[in-house]
Amino acid sequence: MKKIITIGREFGSGGRELGRRLAEELNIEYYDKEIITEISKHTQLSEEYVKDILEKKPHHLYPITIGHTIAYVNDYQLKQAQTVYQAQWDILKDLATKSDCVIVGRCADYILSEFNPYRIFVYADIDSRLKRCIKRSPESEKVAEKTIKKEIARIDKERAQYYHYYTGKDWGSKENYDLCINTTNKDIKEIAKIIAKLFE
Amino acid sequence: MKKIITIGREFGSGGRELGRRLAEELNIEYYDKEIITEISKHTQLSEEYVKDILEKKPHHLYPITIGHTIAYVNDYQLKQAQTVYQAQWDILKDLATKSDCVIVGRCADYILSEFNPYRIFVYADIDSRLKRCIKRSPESEKVAEKTIKKEIARIDKERAQYYHYYTGKDWGSKENYDLCINTTNKDIKEIAKIIAKLFE
Repeated sequence: MKKIITIGREFGSGGRELGRRLAEELNIEYYDKEIITEISKHTQLSEEYVKDILEKKPHHLYPITIGHTIAYVNDYQLKQAQTVYQAQWDILKDLATKSDCVIVGRCADYILSEFNPYRIFVYADIDSRLKRCIKRSPESEKVAEKTIKKEIARIDKERAQYYHYYTGKDWGSKENYDLCINTTNKDIKEIAKIIAKLFE
Repeated sequence: MKKIITIGREFGSGGRELGRRLAEELNIEYYDKEIITEISKHTQLSEEYVKDILEKKPHHLYPITIGHTIAYVNDYQLKQAQTVYQAQWDILKDLATKSDCVIVGRCADYILSEFNPYRIFVYADIDSRLKRCIKRSPESEKVAEKTIKKEIARIDKERAQYYHYYTGKDWGSKENYDLCINTTNKDIKEIAKIIAKLFE
């Protein structure tokens, strides 16, 4: 049976690390930022620009599709956004067809539903996420806890909006996943080792 | 380290089976309906009556504590309810102190918080729960799917009310658990074997 594992995650919960370690344990491919690179190659648009389109709040694009009077003005931008979404869709399906893999983010649980992926969501309490963010930021870039908390909230809000826009479902709502893992005070290395056994 | 595992579960999700198998795998105690029996012994009230009190919609009791004019009328009933709750509280703590165990339901995740329990919530989609309910009901008691669905909804609503009343938290909300497991189309025996490894 094909092993396609998708990982949704709250910012700072260690979901990316869990995905990477899971892929290592299972000796299968791991895709995260690589997808942006692939879309960039595919569309000839810069990685920065692709990232910007994919992380833009969807409602910035939304009115364009209904308001015909403003459609003309933003037509170019809209078409490029559609190209990027289509490329993401195609690339995810390509990757899942090619081999077993772990994919982090990108609404992959929804886009790859025909592959019957195993859908994991990773979360943690705010203090634990704060601690993880502080630990991984370089010494020279230390910022106030309040600022980090605001950034966590901002990124999660964007992820929720993005997910809801493309899937029509609620990001992080347990019904959309096979397993929801709380990493608060947990060792992600240990969790990855055990979760890997679900696929052996 | 002590292994105290609590299991919350949607009706028909197989949470009870998962709990039982987990206890078997880990060779530790398993408590479910045994708690009602213990409370009954402790309070000298019949098991039926204890069950009735514990499953009664909490708001049936609520006004008694504020409306002094009606307090007198229901005083006896209220006191018995309080005795049962206190007994449940004491018994859960006793059991957790005595030995490692798996406890299903009874807000044990909240009552035993000082033991730092591993809190699991088990859920599944409605079709899968329906299937499980039909499978486990005796041949002679087959009822219409619509009736079972209503019963599933009723029991879950009661569990949610009960949990919220005693803990102030939302039942089934992933933040209150360490692991949320979707059993839709999954083999509970297999899941139990793997989850057990978290505690070995």
